[in-house]
Amino acid sequence: MTPEEFRAAGHELIDWIADYRASIETRPVLAQVAPGEVRSMLPDVPPTEPEPFASVLADLDRVVVPGVTTVQHPMHFGWFPSNAALASVLGDLASSGIGSLGISWESSPALTEVEEVVCDWMRQLVGLSRAWVGTIQDTASTAAIVALLVARERASEFSEAAGGLQSVEQPLVVYATDQAHSSVVKAASVAGFGLDNVRTVAHDPWTRAMDPASLDESIAADLAAGRRPAAVIASIGTTGTTAVDPLPAIVDVLDRLGPDGSADRPWLHVDAAMAGSAMILPERRSMWEGVEAADSITFNPHKWLGTILDTSLFYVRDPQHLVRVLSTNPSYLQSSADGQVTQYRDWGLPLGRRFRALKLWFHLRLDGPEALRGRLRRDLDSAAWLAEQIDAEPGWTLVAPVSLQTVCVRHLPSTADGSPMVGEALEAHTQQWVANINRSGQAYLTASKLDGSWMVRVSIGVEGTERHHVAAVWDLMRSTVASLT
Amino acid sequence: MTPEEFRAAGHELIDWIADYRASIETRPVLAQVAPGEVRSMLPDVPPTEPEPFASVLADLDRVVVPGVTTVQHPMHFGWFPSNAALASVLGDLASSGIGSLGISWESSPALTEVEEVVCDWMRQLVGLSRAWVGTIQDTASTAAIVALLVARERASEFSEAAGGLQSVEQPLVVYATDQAHSSVVKAASVAGFGLDNVRTVAHDPWTRAMDPASLDESIAADLAAGRRPAAVIASIGTTGTTAVDPLPAIVDVLDRLGPDGSADRPWLHVDAAMAGSAMILPERRSMWEGVEAADSITFNPHKWLGTILDTSLFYVRDPQHLVRVLSTNPSYLQSSADGQVTQYRDWGLPLGRRFRALKLWFHLRLDGPEALRGRLRRDLDSAAWLAEQIDAEPGWTLVAPVSLQTVCVRHLPSTADGSPMVGEALEAHTQQWVANINRSGQAYLTASKLDGSWMVRVSIGVEGTERHHVAAVWDLMRSTVASLT
Repeated sequence: MTPEEFRAAGHELIDWIADYRASIETRPVLAQVAPGEVRSMLPDVPPTEPEPFASVLADLDRVVVPGVTTVQHPMHFGWFPSNAALASVLGDLASSGIGSLGISWESSPALTEVEEVVCDWMRQLVGLSRAWVGTIQDTASTAAIVALLVARERASEFSEAAGGLQSVEQPLVVYATDQAHSSVVKAASVAGFGLDNVRTVAHDPWTRAMDPASLDESIAADLAAGRRPAAVIASIGTTGTTAVDPLPAIVDVLDRLGPDGSADRPWLHVDAAMAGSAMILPERRSMWEGVEAADSITFNPHKWLGTILDTSLFYVRDPQHLVRVLSTNPSYLQSSADGQVTQYRDWGLPLGRRFRALKLWFHLRLDGPEALRGRLRRDLDSAAWLAEQIDAEPGWTLVAPVSLQTVCVRHLPSTADGSPMVGEALEAHTQQWVANINRSGQAYLTASKLDGSWMVRVSIGVEGTERHHVAAVWDLMRSTVASLT
Repeated sequence: MTPEEFRAAGHELIDWIADYRASIETRPVLAQVAPGEVRSMLPDVPPTEPEPFASVLADLDRVVVPGVTTVQHPMHFGWFPSNAALASVLGDLASSGIGSLGISWESSPALTEVEEVVCDWMRQLVGLSRAWVGTIQDTASTAAIVALLVARERASEFSEAAGGLQSVEQPLVVYATDQAHSSVVKAASVAGFGLDNVRTVAHDPWTRAMDPASLDESIAADLAAGRRPAAVIASIGTTGTTAVDPLPAIVDVLDRLGPDGSADRPWLHVDAAMAGSAMILPERRSMWEGVEAADSITFNPHKWLGTILDTSLFYVRDPQHLVRVLSTNPSYLQSSADGQVTQYRDWGLPLGRRFRALKLWFHLRLDGPEALRGRLRRDLDSAAWLAEQIDAEPGWTLVAPVSLQTVCVRHLPSTADGSPMVGEALEAHTQQWVANINRSGQAYLTASKLDGSWMVRVSIGVEGTERHHVAAVWDLMRSTVASLT
């Protein structure tokens, strides 16, 4: 495709996107397609001739749009909000259009240095000290892997340079609650620890916050058995209920094991994937009080702030430790600038990277932090409002504190004898009403298990979600259960 | 940013990109900036107010463009060609604009199913059998990690579910030549094998192809010592010299160890990151003869085919094995479609993903495979032509066979007594002439070490690189050394 062909098609696509976003509220939220339906609309064999742009654009309307769940719809209250901001779409388009390649500083100095600057801007915006330096990983899953790798190496005296985990004499152990994201256990598997060496630390039954006494006991038991505590993952805003692990108390436990940076002290990784965005609000920073004593922190501007994927920030206080564990230095990537510059290939898993920082740079500059703060405060207010409604409504109950913008709820209908429904009947009821709402396409909520039982998450924060949308989903929730009972 | 603001700014940015690409030949190839220079042009503190789009666009010209090495310049012969095609830029723009989220089939059925279809189209285009199913990883580095993880688990009877690598009784071993990509050793480190358990298999001194007898001996020695061969990484087109490991002979070695799919047989991962693109040419498929017996294959349309990053294809014959090793199934991602659909989160490391397939879908449909074949044949012809010129020119020598589109060369000047320059003087000379070319901004070549000595890679394949550009770089190479000697 020539630049002139690109120009013509690009203008059409920009208009298509603007129209799509402007009309998003007219679409169903949940994709109304069956398994295999999208695939069946496409040819089994690759094209043989070039197709006109009009055909491809038409297929966005015919095949793609009906096949995606509209997570940018203001009535989408599922999972977590993400991947939205049009300002960041432009930044990523610039990245693609320039076609730069990040494999060394020399291959694209601006790619490296804009990322350094933007990570430092975000550091300031969330109130972290100058001790922290950051990079952009694709997702918090990958950040968790990187954190556990550097933890593994610190605790094993850099076993990767010798026999790896296959040679360690004291098994290394990882600690988290069962409220931590699924990627934490996956990361421990990937890093080779083995599930037998992942401890499930107890949590408070209501707040679902990690119990530091349980952490302390668990670590003591492992030490007594000759094992080595390698990493603690603390969650600030879990996926289930936005629970907040108590960092100061966790740090107290770690302080007793060894000084900052020592191999005897487990690496503390703070997974603030969702809640980190809220740290742009000074009044919310108490949520991660104690974070300065962590070894690594991740949070995702591609969630609530709405920067498009992949924008997971990963901060450490000791980047040389990252480099020691993850560096490669093949001759064809060496240059005279080495030693004076950052080589981001040594801060993560992949060698090559896009110009990832442009989307966040555009987003922060074009929308501005104050607008982001305003939107987050709007969502926090909406969540508090919804929680009040639920609290005041007979038959409805909050199942977790509302620490952020996600409201976790059950409807408890009365049975024939007037007692509240329990057990399998309640499980089926919960799954039924949320499925009815989701299948209708009018709104989307997430069913999720908490303490082994189904509940429903109403996660507020889509860019277009105003208070009236939250009121509408609350009406829909009540009318849906009314139609069932 | 509203859809209407996006429309206005988007049109400007499309024009900017079209103009940038149309004028790319007027720019220096190597970025002419010093370490820290880009950073110094940006504010230390984040913006407080939204900025007009014109300011941000102006900064692309003021800060970004001078700070990137112009890898899309027709005189760029460095590393490998990559990340170019404007048709794929449009596909990725559509992905960003739609703002879909890939965390489960339900969250975006089209995201999953278009990826299935496009991976199958590419399978057909490179001539793989129906036995293979594919997914898009970000890079071949990540694909190597995934391959070594599944290899590790197959060889250790799924140790991740128990004590991990910390509990294996027979150390697991990985085999590759020292010509394999740096990401292979990094992947082995990440997966916890430890460098002591990575064997450097010998290679042919001229072709740099793996010596299967050496592989056989190395495996036999490990078996005799009670270790367990877990994985062999074969390269089809190495980064240094595009060397090709002999798959049929490697497969013969593996066949003696255990039947296909068994835990006694090391996992064979084929890293065809660069050369895989050439498999769209039927006349080149002999390069990976034997590939059907591999366990996994990766190649990067984001390299020579020019699809933009991140587009690394990863194929396996047994996806259930991937799922067993990498699956997570939290309650909030479960749906009634489970069991009937593909969950790509279980085929790789991250949970969440962009709509990755759109860029490849757009690229294949808008440019068409025949145009891609034509471009690759042009580049192969140019490389063969350049190799002939070098072969015929006194004082110049090819240092490796030209198996693809990369020509590896040294200039060997005569010294005062008429003998060819050797040793440190030759090392300095090679680094000098390539540095002079690169610093000039007129062209870019990669200096790389081969058998411990510097040589220069002339890697042909940028979309805009015609024969006259190759002739021009050859003139520049000769005039540069003439000015030095």
